[in-house]
Amino acid sequence: MSEHVEPQALGIDIGGTKIAAGLVDEYGRPQHHRQVPTPAQEGPEAILAAALAVAKAVLSTTDTMVRSCGVATAGTVDSTGKILTATALLRNWAGADVGGHLRIALGVPVTVRNDVHAAGLAEARIGAARGARTALMIAIGTGIGGAILVNGAIENGRTGTAGSLGHTPAPSSSGRLCSCGVPDHLEALSSGPAIEDAYQSRTGEKLGLRAIGALARDGNHYAQEVLSTAGSMVGRVLAGVANVIDPDVIVIGGGVSNLGTLLTDPISRAYRREALPGPATCRIEVAALGSHAGLVGAALDAIAHKGRDQA
Amino acid sequence: MSEHVEPQALGIDIGGTKIAAGLVDEYGRPQHHRQVPTPAQEGPEAILAAALAVAKAVLSTTDTMVRSCGVATAGTVDSTGKILTATALLRNWAGADVGGHLRIALGVPVTVRNDVHAAGLAEARIGAARGARTALMIAIGTGIGGAILVNGAIENGRTGTAGSLGHTPAPSSSGRLCSCGVPDHLEALSSGPAIEDAYQSRTGEKLGLRAIGALARDGNHYAQEVLSTAGSMVGRVLAGVANVIDPDVIVIGGGVSNLGTLLTDPISRAYRREALPGPATCRIEVAALGSHAGLVGAALDAIAHKGRDQA
Repeated sequence: MSEHVEPQALGIDIGGTKIAAGLVDEYGRPQHHRQVPTPAQEGPEAILAAALAVAKAVLSTTDTMVRSCGVATAGTVDSTGKILTATALLRNWAGADVGGHLRIALGVPVTVRNDVHAAGLAEARIGAARGARTALMIAIGTGIGGAILVNGAIENGRTGTAGSLGHTPAPSSSGRLCSCGVPDHLEALSSGPAIEDAYQSRTGEKLGLRAIGALARDGNHYAQEVLSTAGSMVGRVLAGVANVIDPDVIVIGGGVSNLGTLLTDPISRAYRREALPGPATCRIEVAALGSHAGLVGAALDAIAHKGRDQA
Repeated sequence: MSEHVEPQALGIDIGGTKIAAGLVDEYGRPQHHRQVPTPAQEGPEAILAAALAVAKAVLSTTDTMVRSCGVATAGTVDSTGKILTATALLRNWAGADVGGHLRIALGVPVTVRNDVHAAGLAEARIGAARGARTALMIAIGTGIGGAILVNGAIENGRTGTAGSLGHTPAPSSSGRLCSCGVPDHLEALSSGPAIEDAYQSRTGEKLGLRAIGALARDGNHYAQEVLSTAGSMVGRVLAGVANVIDPDVIVIGGGVSNLGTLLTDPISRAYRREALPGPATCRIEVAALGSHAGLVGAALDAIAHKGRDQA
């Protein structure tokens, strides 16, 4: 085979349960995808070793010249590719010099991004927010994250925290504690686990999100109610944030968004009722890129850096 | 006298009670300030005629060559200088072609901005947010408005609504209706009238904001409590928004901020308790430019447009 020289980057997505890697071209097409379980509780060295192993497995399957690497990871990331803050999902992850470590090990420039930031970038470049000047992404999963994309580039903010929609105070006085320790944040009311808990406290039955979705589709009142309540809260909070940002499009992603219209209908309804006249007419789209979005976005970001390091 | 040729703009601030005008140089220094009452209920033609009269009065006092005009006004403004939406404070103001009208009448390029956007721009260029990459301004007065400034320029958003902090759902279930018709927005809980109403419903006594402030300074428990509650709500909502924007600085302005630490202390305390670790360390400043901020910011914006029209 001849050596390819098109812009092509290695993408790595370091998540709480799996580490995925693949090659991504400038159009965001992933190839040679591989994944391994994340040794999430074994500390940063083990996690980085696993990431490097899966990256090398991808590289060994191709003679394509890879000129850069983009990493998507949980946590907030500083401007040099170091983890600033992270939840307990990845043990001792805060402080890990992901960029520095992989730069040396792979011998190419590396950019590191928060995983929802990376997914948002992918949506802005080739997905549901393509062509938008300003896009607001919300990712609803085990937690709730978000991203702001301006002209296809991630807004990091001063501390890498920008886009963090999960910790917006919700219009509630339930007292329910958020993962950050403060009551009544959106994440405490509308994340996947919050929906499961709400169903259990309503019915006494402990069910997973898919089962709750199936029941709701079959007309179960309680299942419909907890999804509608969780979605409404997302819509109201999004309206408040969209009043401030006034984006061109809002993109709803994350695992919980797989519930489809059971979740997105109450989100849209509450959003349009709550927002000011201008933002109320904003497009609301479901994320287009699925579970590869973080990996693809990180790689597209690396390609955009044209072989320069993040720092 | 010789004719001056430095960059100098005419600033006009069209508010609910008064219309002010003055000349502003490139350093933001206002001169030849004049003001008249706003014929707020007489319709757009009367308001624009009054604005033009006060502008001409300013111009007649000087032989300085004015090359552009910046207008600050209540309401949201489109990219051509037309009013998109406005409250009932200025009757029938929505739809008024402020930019087009004044361009013809004054014979110079005109830029039109929302008044809080303009005040935020002034703070970012020469005030409390000087040098910040991203600044978040909140103006607490009869209503609650806001602005996002990036590198000293106003973020308008898709519909001119960006920065509208007053209509963020607050972490409350008081059911109190906002001016926009939806319950539990920040403006319904922490604006000047909301503070006066809270004091009245707590004590039965109808007092103005200054009197409530004086009582709080004298140790009156109820006065302190209503100010602390209103400030805490502002701090919590600001924290949620700052998690998403992750600005370099937050600026607190508007008439209610004249209460000083009685309001800003509970805002800061609630903010730092509520925000994520990164944004929690954000600088919080009191607005530096006082009541001329809108006029000065609009004029600085016009100077920055270098004699081009907004459109």
